[in-house]
Amino acid sequence: MSDNPSFVLQSVGNVSIEHRPIPDLSSDNDVIVEVKKTGICGSDVHYLVHGRIGDFVLKNPMVLGHESSGVISKAGSKVKHVKPGDRVAIEPGATCGSCTHCKSGRYNLCPDIVFAATPPYDGTLARYYRVHGSLVYPLPDHLSLEDGAMMEPLSVGVHSVSHLGSFRTNQSIAVFGCGPVGLLCMAVARALGASRIIAVDIVPSRLEFAKKYAGAETYQPIPPSENEPRIQYSRRNAENMKKVLGIEDRGSTAIDLVVDASGAEVSIQTALYLVKVGGTVVQVGMGNPNVTIDLGMIMVKELVFKGSFRYGPGAYALAIALVSQGKIDLKPLVTHRYPFTDALVAFNTTRAGKSEDGKGVIKAIISGPDVSVEAS
Amino acid sequence: MSDNPSFVLQSVGNVSIEHRPIPDLSSDNDVIVEVKKTGICGSDVHYLVHGRIGDFVLKNPMVLGHESSGVISKAGSKVKHVKPGDRVAIEPGATCGSCTHCKSGRYNLCPDIVFAATPPYDGTLARYYRVHGSLVYPLPDHLSLEDGAMMEPLSVGVHSVSHLGSFRTNQSIAVFGCGPVGLLCMAVARALGASRIIAVDIVPSRLEFAKKYAGAETYQPIPPSENEPRIQYSRRNAENMKKVLGIEDRGSTAIDLVVDASGAEVSIQTALYLVKVGGTVVQVGMGNPNVTIDLGMIMVKELVFKGSFRYGPGAYALAIALVSQGKIDLKPLVTHRYPFTDALVAFNTTRAGKSEDGKGVIKAIISGPDVSVEAS
Amino acid sequence: MSDNPSFVLQSVGNVSIEHRPIPDLSSDNDVIVEVKKTGICGSDVHYLVHGRIGDFVLKNPMVLGHESSGVISKAGSKVKHVKPGDRVAIEPGATCGSCTHCKSGRYNLCPDIVFAATPPYDGTLARYYRVHGSLVYPLPDHLSLEDGAMMEPLSVGVHSVSHLGSFRTNQSIAVFGCGPVGLLCMAVARALGASRIIAVDIVPSRLEFAKKYAGAETYQPIPPSENEPRIQYSRRNAENMKKVLGIEDRGSTAIDLVVDASGAEVSIQTALYLVKVGGTVVQVGMGNPNVTIDLGMIMVKELVFKGSFRYGPGAYALAIALVSQGKIDLKPLVTHRYPFTDALVAFNTTRAGKSEDGKGVIKAIISGPDVSVEAS
Amino acid sequence: MSDNPSFVLQSVGNVSIEHRPIPDLSSDNDVIVEVKKTGICGSDVHYLVHGRIGDFVLKNPMVLGHESSGVISKAGSKVKHVKPGDRVAIEPGATCGSCTHCKSGRYNLCPDIVFAATPPYDGTLARYYRVHGSLVYPLPDHLSLEDGAMMEPLSVGVHSVSHLGSFRTNQSIAVFGCGPVGLLCMAVARALGASRIIAVDIVPSRLEFAKKYAGAETYQPIPPSENEPRIQYSRRNAENMKKVLGIEDRGSTAIDLVVDASGAEVSIQTALYLVKVGGTVVQVGMGNPNVTIDLGMIMVKELVFKGSFRYGPGAYALAIALVSQGKIDLKPLVTHRYPFTDALVAFNTTRAGKSEDGKGVIKAIISGPDVSVEAS
Ligand SMILES: NC(=O)c1ccc[n+]([C@@H]2O[C@H](COP(=O)([O-])OP(=O)(O)OC[C@H]3O[C@@H](n4cnc5c(N)ncnc54)[C@H](O)[C@@H]3O)[C@@H](O)[C@H]2O)c1
Ligand SMILES: NC(=O)c1ccc[n+]([C@@H]2O[C@H](COP(=O)([O-])OP(=O)(O)OC[C@H]3O[C@@H](n4cnc5c(N)ncnc54)[C@H](O)[C@@H]3O)[C@@H](O)[C@H]2O)c1
Ligand SMILES: NC(=O)c1ccc[n+]([C@@H]2O[C@H](COP(=O)([O-])OP(=O)(O)OC[C@H]3O[C@@H](n4cnc5c(N)ncnc54)[C@H](O)[C@@H]3O)[C@@H](O)[C@H]2O)c1
Ligand SMILES: NC(=O)c1ccc[n+]([C@@H]2O[C@H](COP(=O)([O-])OP(=O)(O)OC[C@H]3O[C@@H](n4cnc5c(N)ncnc54)[C@H](O)[C@@H]3O)[C@@H](O)[C@H]2O)c1
Ligand SMILES: [Zn+2]
Ligand SMILES: [Zn+2]
Ligand SMILES: [Zn+2]
Ligand SMILES: [Zn+2]
Repeated sequence: MSDNPSFVLQSVGNVSIEHRPIPDLSSDNDVIVEVKKTGICGSDVHYLVHGRIGDFVLKNPMVLGHESSGVISKAGSKVKHVKPGDRVAIEPGATCGSCTHCKSGRYNLCPDIVFAATPPYDGTLARYYRVHGSLVYPLPDHLSLEDGAMMEPLSVGVHSVSHLGSFRTNQSIAVFGCGPVGLLCMAVARALGASRIIAVDIVPSRLEFAKKYAGAETYQPIPPSENEPRIQYSRRNAENMKKVLGIEDRGSTAIDLVVDASGAEVSIQTALYLVKVGGTVVQVGMGNPNVTIDLGMIMVKELVFKGSFRYGPGAYALAIALVSQGKIDLKPLVTHRYPFTDALVAFNTTRAGKSEDGKGVIKAIISGPDVSVEAS
Repeated sequence: MSDNPSFVLQSVGNVSIEHRPIPDLSSDNDVIVEVKKTGICGSDVHYLVHGRIGDFVLKNPMVLGHESSGVISKAGSKVKHVKPGDRVAIEPGATCGSCTHCKSGRYNLCPDIVFAATPPYDGTLARYYRVHGSLVYPLPDHLSLEDGAMMEPLSVGVHSVSHLGSFRTNQSIAVFGCGPVGLLCMAVARALGASRIIAVDIVPSRLEFAKKYAGAETYQPIPPSENEPRIQYSRRNAENMKKVLGIEDRGSTAIDLVVDASGAEVSIQTALYLVKVGGTVVQVGMGNPNVTIDLGMIMVKELVFKGSFRYGPGAYALAIALVSQGKIDLKPLVTHRYPFTDALVAFNTTRAGKSEDGKGVIKAIISGPDVSVEAS
Repeated sequence: MSDNPSFVLQSVGNVSIEHRPIPDLSSDNDVIVEVKKTGICGSDVHYLVHGRIGDFVLKNPMVLGHESSGVISKAGSKVKHVKPGDRVAIEPGATCGSCTHCKSGRYNLCPDIVFAATPPYDGTLARYYRVHGSLVYPLPDHLSLEDGAMMEPLSVGVHSVSHLGSFRTNQSIAVFGCGPVGLLCMAVARALGASRIIAVDIVPSRLEFAKKYAGAETYQPIPPSENEPRIQYSRRNAENMKKVLGIEDRGSTAIDLVVDASGAEVSIQTALYLVKVGGTVVQVGMGNPNVTIDLGMIMVKELVFKGSFRYGPGAYALAIALVSQGKIDLKPLVTHRYPFTDALVAFNTTRAGKSEDGKGVIKAIISGPDVSVEAS
Repeated sequence: MSDNPSFVLQSVGNVSIEHRPIPDLSSDNDVIVEVKKTGICGSDVHYLVHGRIGDFVLKNPMVLGHESSGVISKAGSKVKHVKPGDRVAIEPGATCGSCTHCKSGRYNLCPDIVFAATPPYDGTLARYYRVHGSLVYPLPDHLSLEDGAMMEPLSVGVHSVSHLGSFRTNQSIAVFGCGPVGLLCMAVARALGASRIIAVDIVPSRLEFAKKYAGAETYQPIPPSENEPRIQYSRRNAENMKKVLGIEDRGSTAIDLVVDASGAEVSIQTALYLVKVGGTVVQVGMGNPNVTIDLGMIMVKELVFKGSFRYGPGAYALAIALVSQGKIDLKPLVTHRYPFTDALVAFNTTRAGKSEDGKGVIKAIISGPDVSVEAS
């Protein structure tokens, strides 16, 4: 194809399809990917609506999208593991490879990371995307390009649950928030051999989804009393949750790992009351940054509370392997599909949480320019 | 000696010296220690004043004291490493040895721990104290019995800095709070080869002490503005601290580990802004349990935030070794000494933070019944 | 029952059923188990035939057997998790609970361990066995008493593969030796989500068994050439194995973990040539102690070579959970069953590797006195 | 300077000073270093004498040398931490930054590593050397360029003792071999707070050096008996060593870590008998690859035996910091100094172990072309 239509966020709330120059290899280690499928994530929507996340502020027009798969269209001479025509998942963060964090196995903390659709760097919602060859992962034949696009959020789950949470076979987990990220955390826990998965959400349909999708037990938080301070509510909520689900602080009915994928203050508070003595809480959700927690729990139970930021070494490889081996099924998560020209509709649907027909969205996928909307 | 005078907290605010029966060995693995020196800690004072800490509530009279050393007066037949007459430091928490936590190397989380002077268990402020033989550690000849009593708070420092903080040679540390616990955390960091130690306190004399005692750089927090929300103040305070002390988020000027030994909300908030990307914050101080933190920091810097509860395997042994090798000097910390009959004065002094003559207290030591108040 | 028939090794090669006194609780923490099923292991046979293993030498008559399950007949007053009538698996090593190794999470290294049927301590082949309550694990209803007896060798597999080998989902493993221990290592790897399991043995029927039982790929070592030094043979064998099975030194076709459960020198040598760059070899098998290895491999591939001794914290619990969840099936491993009065036949069968009818033995189980030989 | 004299190994045993083209930056991330000081190591000598080490075989002429420091003469536009004129230590292994090993924190295992003076890559014995900017480390003002050259072998010690050996304050170590590598391992252990350092060598003068340099206790192996099998000798040697030095298998007199820096079979054998139950042996020395070990020790003591290959993330930084803080003094190790034109003499001296005047060599340093031979 001889042009490069790109879905550009021009300014807050203002997008357009722009014709950008076709990128070329900037080094022998690069590849050019013809992007086929791109999932929309909350952060994409956030930039569209607010123009910023934390210290990352949109200053110039930026192509959106970072959860993508595609087909190699060009490969630099030093790239050995893929060739033009290969179907690949794209890891959207290019790191320097030589700073302290890159060298010591924590490349997600690289200060010079170039992350797709994080200002000022362009994203993947275009016909072509150039990336370092080491960031494209060949898709096994039986995986679809949609599966490939889903490897990005799945890698978030892998990083949180497997790498940071050190989750192992026969451990128990509770996940707060049953959006795509929470569901994928559950899927990873299931694939790793969880003895018990508890899904928490305030939206019953999402709990229903978690039950079917991940075989999770579900818990819908009790309502707060009037004027009840949040932290007090959360303690009460955790007590109720323990009683209803038969959870204790120690032993085989205790929860080894809690992952918060909701970003809600009450979830994090409840998590600290819920998790076992000596347990771990991994924070994936981002919401209101200021959160009040009960420090006494962290102390007396000697907890470990960890932040999880994107994903690090081995996350993509494990994500692809788990799907490839049939331990995780990504298909049920794709609820909506749009052609490139309807990209904005995909954003609006994701923002609304459902499409105009009232169907709840888990993940909306936008096909690349001139790519069929069909599943594969 | 044929009696066992004991310093008993009868009820909140109400103590007396009572004559208790002399304990006898309850198993071949026990020892009876003639207690010689006991340090007073904030928690002892807290029980005296409030009758409770968290869920531990004084219901019946209880002997106070848990930072003690003494001389073995009897040893069970299976106790091999000490004999009557030996000078020892006493670890005050007897654990079950057979629960999951005991077996897996985290005995401080044992649900059946019998901890001296934590209700309902009697403490060490008596002539005799019975304890499992594995909890008494012989003191090298060149260490004093006061040194022995100080091994308890030093073990808190060892556990926090060395074991949980995984502090290693050439790392940097900031410690919030320059009371005995904070100072001992600094002493451990120094002994482990810290490249840089930063002491934070709001009391200038304590900073002065930290500077002399631990060779720390010092920082006194700036005052908050009127009506400034605490979290906003703390961010500003951290920014100022970074500027004044030349601290950055990454690289050789970044802070690897922050330990909070103040329990103050603003300290914990500042800690999270201060610590390096990918760093660790260990929480030792206990204050108001409800603390508001900036979750964004935990996420974006992918921090690890750990609670520290007492001490675990190897803490006493390392504490004694570091003092024995001259890497830590405990003597400067003992600012006040009292005979057993003045135990209450020791408590009041610790509570007031200074003695009647205005001298600031770091650690007050109560000698055992009929034991000289002299240093050794 | 009012007597305690016991299968006693009187001296090398010389056994008899003796009537020993019925044991009583020696502390409130003990239980008495009526032993129902006991598996025979190579070490039991070794004591029968040689009277010693390493530094453990039979000096006085000793009851044999250490892989047992049974029913609680008495429980000390402090034992809470089981009561008379409960079916349990017995962990046969009682540790002191207070030495450095016990306290730091490595109780299998306790110098004072009392291990069943390791001289001078009696084993479990009797009607009654007394043990510390923390060493009996309730069996879920759907597990049989034979399953319970198999938890001991399964714990060896759990310790080697999961705990020491840190084996995780999607890793690959090669196991040398397809006896009960090797097979159980494979079963654990399978249960933990192995991407690939390779079984190695010199006996084709055992390879066949491994293939069916654990879904393993199999490899039968090539024969050595005449006068070929062993180490040279092993290198050639490893090269052949890599070629035949498509194994490389790095990447997705490399072997993450090798476990030797054969004790054969050539296996260990081959293991070091086979394992991936940066990989781990865990040594479980015990054979001729003196083994020649290629140190260059350890260096250049920066390998970790670990000894595995029995099992430590959490092994029994994970073993039971994996079987209970259906991730491991122990039934196919029990090939022979004997009444108590035929205990010697069970030993002879295990020693011969097959019963008189020519059927190969994996595991022979001896029922307790007056217990039916039936499977459950 | 307008030329680039280089010390080239033309073929086995055959060297000459050749005038090579001056290298230029090949990317914006590169620097050109004017090499000032280069230490000679056993491997350099080995290539000179044998033309190969393991699978690395000299096929074309190659510049020798890899332990170097120098002054930046050019810096690519993206290099921020150094500028022309800065004094630096050079890390001689350039890694790809994007393979699995590079990304996961083990870059020393990178298959595409370009290591100075390892065939086919040229080394540093030239006027100019080009290297990726992330591989040059600024030297603090009070460190000499000779110190800078010594950072390479010191990093081997850091990697072995600190990173792989996880050596911590108050642990004990035994080091076999008192050549430069062994001495630097001791220096690292001392700097990290060793409670006890034991140096082993068969050459009394080297033991004497270790005693003075590292404050080590020393042990000279007993002579083997006639016809005594090596492994039997080593056991006897270890028993003797334990008796003479008061070493036990457990507890405070046990040896936590043994590092072999001799490469001798008997050292490795003795190490396994010597190290504590549950201890670690790190293998740094390379000798005859085939070594017979007592596997029983690895099993029963549940040892960890690790290979150490060069150095990984953080080794150079820690090496420089320890010297900079005065915890390690490198000066006593430099025993011989040569001008560039006498490079071959330096090699011959290192090979002989002493200079013509009979003075034993620890480290010989060759100055860069036209650089004064003076210490700094
Ligand atoms: N750490 C990272 O690297 C990373 C990466 C991707 C996404 N995220 C974050 O993960 C979070 C989840 O992402 P998502 O795409 O699944 O979002 P989402 O909005 O689809 O899902 C969030 C879910 O949380 C539920 N929820 C809200 N309040 C709750 C409460 N009080 N209790 C229980 N559940 C509650 C919502 O109903 C919703 O189902 C977001 O905060 C996102 O920013 C983080
Ligand atoms: N985790 C454990 O196992 C454990 C064990 C012992 C003590 N503790 C806790 O450790 C803490 C310290 O103990 P201590 O005996 O040293 O107490 P302390 O009261 O003597 O010292 C606390 C210090 O913190 C300082 N401080 C108060 N507010 C501050 C602020 N905003 N910024 C900086 N510094 C501030 C005080 O001036 C004081 O010097 C206490 O909270 C105690 O309960 C915990
Ligand atoms: N480390 C421990 O705590 C522990 C515990 C139990 C058993 N063990 C040891 O584990 C080993 C296995 O025990 P088991 O009961 O399964 O024994 P087993 O004798 O039934 O099995 C050993 C298997 O290794 C095979 N084998 C022999 N030489 C081989 C070679 N050159 N290559 C490949 N395979 C070869 C044999 O054919 C046999 O199938 C024994 O050495 C035993 O002493 C160790
Ligand atoms: N692993 C790596 O990355 C790495 C890097 C550099 C060097 N090395 C290796 O480290 C080893 C040491 O290097 P070096 O430069 O110090 O060498 P060196 O030859 O100067 O020192 C070796 C020392 O070992 C002593 N020794 C020999 N036999 C002994 C025995 N039986 N018992 C005790 N001591 C004995 C020698 O007397 C000598 O003092 C070499 O084998 C070298 O190849 C490895
Ligand atoms: Zn980087
Ligand atoms: Zn316990
Ligand atoms: Zn023990
Ligand atoms: Zn690499």
